[in-house]
Formats: sequence, structure tokens, C-alpha cells
Amino acid sequence: MRDVAVIGVGMTKWGELWEKSFRDIFVESALLALDDAGVDRIDSMYVGSMSSGLFVGQEHIASLLADYLGQAPIPSTRVETACASGGLALRLGFMEVASGMSDVVLVGGIEKMTDVSGDEATYALGSAADQEYEGYHGITFPGLYALIARAHMEKYGTTREQLALVAVKNHKNGAKNPLAQFPFEITVDSVLNSVMIADPLRLLDCSPITDGAAAAVIVPVEVAKKMKKPVIKILGTGHATDTIALSSRKDITWLESTYQAAKQAYDMADKKPEDINFIEVHDCFTIAEICVLEALGIVEKGKGGEAYEDELTFLEGKIPVNTSGGLKAKGHPVGATGVAQVIEIVKQLRGEAGKRQIKDPRIGMAQNMGGSGGSSVVHIFERE
Amino acid sequence: MRDVAVIGVGMTKWGELWEKSFRDIFVESALLALDDAGVDRIDSMYVGSMSSGLFVGQEHIASLLADYLGQAPIPSTRVETACASGGLALRLGFMEVASGMSDVVLVGGIEKMTDVSGDEATYALGSAADQEYEGYHGITFPGLYALIARAHMEKYGTTREQLALVAVKNHKNGAKNPLAQFPFEITVDSVLNSVMIADPLRLLDCSPITDGAAAAVIVPVEVAKKMKKPVIKILGTGHATDTIALSSRKDITWLESTYQAAKQAYDMADKKPEDINFIEVHDCFTIAEICVLEALGIVEKGKGGEAYEDELTFLEGKIPVNTSGGLKAKGHPVGATGVAQVIEIVKQLRGEAGKRQIKDPRIGMAQNMGGSGGSSVVHIFERE
Repeated sequence: MRDVAVIGVGMTKWGELWEKSFRDIFVESALLALDDAGVDRIDSMYVGSMSSGLFVGQEHIASLLADYLGQAPIPSTRVETACASGGLALRLGFMEVASGMSDVVLVGGIEKMTDVSGDEATYALGSAADQEYEGYHGITFPGLYALIARAHMEKYGTTREQLALVAVKNHKNGAKNPLAQFPFEITVDSVLNSVMIADPLRLLDCSPITDGAAAAVIVPVEVAKKMKKPVIKILGTGHATDTIALSSRKDITWLESTYQAAKQAYDMADKKPEDINFIEVHDCFTIAEICVLEALGIVEKGKGGEAYEDELTFLEGKIPVNTSGGLKAKGHPVGATGVAQVIEIVKQLRGEAGKRQIKDPRIGMAQNMGGSGGSSVVHIFERE
Repeated sequence: MRDVAVIGVGMTKWGELWEKSFRDIFVESALLALDDAGVDRIDSMYVGSMSSGLFVGQEHIASLLADYLGQAPIPSTRVETACASGGLALRLGFMEVASGMSDVVLVGGIEKMTDVSGDEATYALGSAADQEYEGYHGITFPGLYALIARAHMEKYGTTREQLALVAVKNHKNGAKNPLAQFPFEITVDSVLNSVMIADPLRLLDCSPITDGAAAAVIVPVEVAKKMKKPVIKILGTGHATDTIALSSRKDITWLESTYQAAKQAYDMADKKPEDINFIEVHDCFTIAEICVLEALGIVEKGKGGEAYEDELTFLEGKIPVNTSGGLKAKGHPVGATGVAQVIEIVKQLRGEAGKRQIKDPRIGMAQNMGGSGGSSVVHIFERE
């Protein structure tokens, strides 16, 4: 298999984009990525979207978007694994380029979530849970993650304040990201006094509903070098599954799919957790970020909460996490999130992250997750 | 890239399967495929489904189905390109095995369409059309294909009787397929006197709403040989896109995405139309089969209708088409259709097609299509 590099990335500001259509949002980001890569034609494209059917009544989006991007009749594939759809699009694009089938592949993600009512959005998001054993009994994602949070607090002594620090840190970073949906800082107090959603999770523990897209262009490393592009190499990829119903798991505080996907990516990249300089993780709720860091091997099992008191994961810490603002502050258009993570990794590795730039990073990791951990996709990147 | 073979296939009887859940239908077919292949573990799986969100309120199905098949934590990917989702699942599985990333991959397709009302099913299927420029103005697929039929009749003199012969031929074959939803014969008269749906298309010109799944196991050819399995090799794969809105096409009688996908598959397989012994095509409406044969180069442009008077495509004809009964008689659970086509090809090439067996075929082709031709996937298979 051939080595693969990311040579172009693009996204526009995320938020409630009522004045733009689904196809417009995608095409804007994709054109920015093509421009950044310096290419105007692609061999193939992959689009991650969780539920364009329930959110905007449109399936068959891979063809629609290829057409509106002016790229038909190229092969165009939509992939879905709930909120990890964007990461999965990157993985399949990687496979296509690595295998030699294509040279220039566009990888994108999109979700337009605010054209429906809050109830409809909650139903659509709930379709990432087990409808027969979870959804039909009335539980939705804040409730599922609240169960995980309660179990983590009970088992490991994780505190309400530690959870709040996850959101505080991500908003601190997000305030430095002009494309973020909520680019402002919050305090521990404001988290602890925000509206209760599902005990112990409050409003500011939850990532928002967002419209947005993101795109990246990948090519063989040798092509990137010929084009005189900065080489951000995809060192490793991992993808794993778990039960999508929380009730079927042995230990609801442990994200087995993230552990398994990370193991694949570490092995392929020949790296260990201590080799990673910074990470974008799937903080759909504050407790998720804590569990993810444990499953990735960044902190010991059960020690995720404590790490936030030491500011280990803050912008100036030993291993910055979610320098982009994460899902919490940047926004979470579910199918686009995994690709936006890649954009942040590339920006940091190129030294183009502006006010949130960390010092001379070489190796970054992205972890994207579906549902309450029913699927995970992990990638490791290196600046050559 | 490595050569790839299909070594196992499985499907259960299609129809209105109200007594079985979405997950049960898939697992039953997948277990049959694993049993046929003689394997009990897989490295990875792909599932094609057009709109599990709108039909059963469940996304994240790749993880759900991997779990219920007892295969978590393997990577499991759902792909979607409307009614061509099954063919696309095969293409991506092929890529994964050919690239060397995995050795044993399960490829499946599923749709459970009868748990919703007819109106809801029509809306869900309509999401394969352009919702902003087609759906919101009230047109649905029978109407879109009726436009194509009228144009074909006007431009090439195709007759109402020729359209009927497509359905008659497919039911004749389907009557010999015990897994078909409608395993009985019909006559030209019964087609011409069936209820009008969208002039000139009548009820018996339309494929039905169906619950069903299908699965296949693919491995490198060298592995298939070691396992002493009959080698049904995937010689070529093609995937192409077109506008999903009919109004954006230059000529609505011409399926450009099928032409482009077939060209890729012929080139990769180093074959021409005259090398193909039999074909499974996407006859969602009778007119579709006629247009597809033209785009595949099996008959000249505009001559598709005439071919039916000569019985060229009948079971005893020069190039049998849809020996399985096609979408018309076998049923059309949209995401599963592309994989079921592969099953028919494999059964015929192995000489296991029972009463519908054709004489000693060596090369078969499958053409799977999304919407009114917004996407097409074509594969060519050879018995070694």
C-alpha cells in the first residue's frame, strides 16, 4: 500500500445556517479544500453524513454533491456510522489512495441539523442508539451519557467540577477559533449553574446542534512532494465497533471501540500514546472526553477526571486536547465532525492554527465516535 | 492489487416480513453466506442500505449488524447511494480485499420497507430524487420513470407492448426462483390491464416494496483456491455518478452513469459487451431495463424495446437478463438489491440456479442503479 498525505483542507463558519442549503454548505467547504490543495479535479470522493434522510429528507447525497461540485461522473460514496461518519470517510478515502485505485480523493462530511424542530433533531440523533432496546423506551443521548457519567463518578470518584473543566477548556480553545459556532469562554460556575439536562449533565456539558461541513483532499505522499505541498502523512488508521446499546456492555465507563480502533492505528503507525503531541477527540458530552482519553491510553483507566485538575490537556499542557474547541465550542454537525478534526490536525501541524497554535507539533491524533461508542475511528498524522 | 473472489452467498425469501425485525433479516442472510463460504469469522464488513433512518428509524446500522452477527469489534461500514447501495458495498469490500488491508470481508445489503405506510415509503424512496428540485414539487419515482418512458417511446418508437414484455420475461424467470417475492408468471394482457400508476406505466411495470437482505463473502483468489472453493472472480468494478435531478440531463433516455460505470468495469476486466453471457440489471421499472441495456452497450441506442420482441434477453435467448426475476418479480428491498444480483450471478456461474439455470455461463455482469440513474455500479464476474 502507498503512503498517503492530506494536502488540502476547507471549512466555513459553523452554526445555524438557515440561509444556506445542504448542497451549498458542502460545496463551499469542498471548494476551499480543493483551492488549498491546488487541484481542480478529483478521481473520487467520500462523504460522511449521519442522517441526511431524517434531517433534510435527502438521501443519494454522494451523487448530488459530486454533481454540484462539478465533478460528476466520478465515483462518489456516502458512508455512515452515526457521528463517526466523517472519520470513516477519511478512512475509506485513505484506503482508495493507498490501494492505488485513485490518486486524488476528496473526503468530506456534512450535516444540516437545524432545518427541523428540536424534537425531530432529537429523534434523528436517537437513531444512532438502539431503537428497539433504547429509543423506543424513551432514552436519548443526554440520558445515555448521563448514565456513563454517574457510573464514572461512582466507580472512580470523578467530580462534577472535573466534568465542567472539560467544557471550560474546550471553550477557551474555541474562543480562539473564528470558525467555531460558540467562540467564547465559559467558567466552571457557568457550567454548574446551567440548565439541568440529564442529571448530572447540564446544558454546558452538551455539544450543540449545528449546521456545517468540512472537506480534505488526500493524495499519495509522492504526489504531494511533486506538488511541493507540506506533507501531512496519515500514519495509521483504525476502525472498530461495539454494541450500540449501552445496556449490552460489560462496563459502561469503558469505550471498547475506541480502545480497539486506537490499537489498530497505533500498531499501523508504530507509535505509542506517549508519542502523540496533541489530539482531537469526540467530546459530544464532557464525560465522553474523559472516557476517550482513558481508552486511548493517554491517561490511566479511571484517572481521566483528575487530568483536568492538572490542566494536562489544556492548550499549554503536556498533551493539548481539542485545540479547535472540540465538539462543545466548535459545534457538532454530526457527519462533518470527523473531517473537521482532521482540519485542526493539519492546521496545527502546518503551524497555521493562529492564536491557538501549539509549539512545533509533529504527531497528532483524531478520534471520532458514533453514538455512545458503538463505533470509533482513529487516525494518526505526522508532519514530515 | 490482489485478485478477489466471491466464495459464499446467502439470502432468505423476500416479501412483507412483518414477523421479523431489521436485524434478524440481515443476520439470517449473513449467516447463510458465512456458512456457504465455510468461514465463521470475518475481518471487516460493508452494509448497503438506502434509508434505514426513514424506513425503520435506525441509523448506525453497520455497528448494530456487526454486533448481532457476533462479529464486533471488527470494522463495519454502511454505504449509501440510494438503490445502488448494495452494489457499492461490494465495490468497497472488493477494494479492501484487493488492497491487502483485509482477507475475509462480508458484503451485505438490507432494507425493511413495509413497516411504514405507503405514503411514508413513497417519501423515503423519493429522497433518492432531488428533494429541492423534484420532491418538493410533488413528483415521485413512477412519475420520473414515466417521463423517461414517454421520451423513449417518442424518440425511438418503443411500444407499450415492448415495455410489458420486460415484466413478462422477469416474472417468467421469477416463477422459477423460490426466494422471489412474486414467484408467478404474468401476461402482456395482465400488464396492459393493470392499474395505471403514471402514464404510460402501470402497476405491473413497477417493482414492488419489499423487506429483504442479501450477503456475500469475498476473499483473495489465492485464499479461495486454498479453501478449495469454486472461484467466482470479480474481474472488473465501475462506479459513476450523474445529476440526480432528471431535469438537469441532456437526454433523459440515456443513462450516462451506467455507461460510465460499465466502461470502467469493461476496461478493468478487459472485456467487451459481446463477451458477457448473462446480466442482472436494475429493472425498477420496465423502461429502466430497456435504457440500461442500451447504456451497457448490449443493444444499440434506441433499440432496447425491439430486443424484447426477439426474446434476446429471455432465459433461452442469446443474452439472458435478470434470470433471478429481477427487481420486478424477485422484489426490491432497495439497499439489498445490488447484493442479490451478485448472488444470482454466483449461483448461475456455479451451476446452482435450479430451474432457471442457463447453459454453462462463464461471464456474468451486474448493474445496480440509484434513483433515476444518479448513480450506477457495475461489476463483471468470471468463473475460473
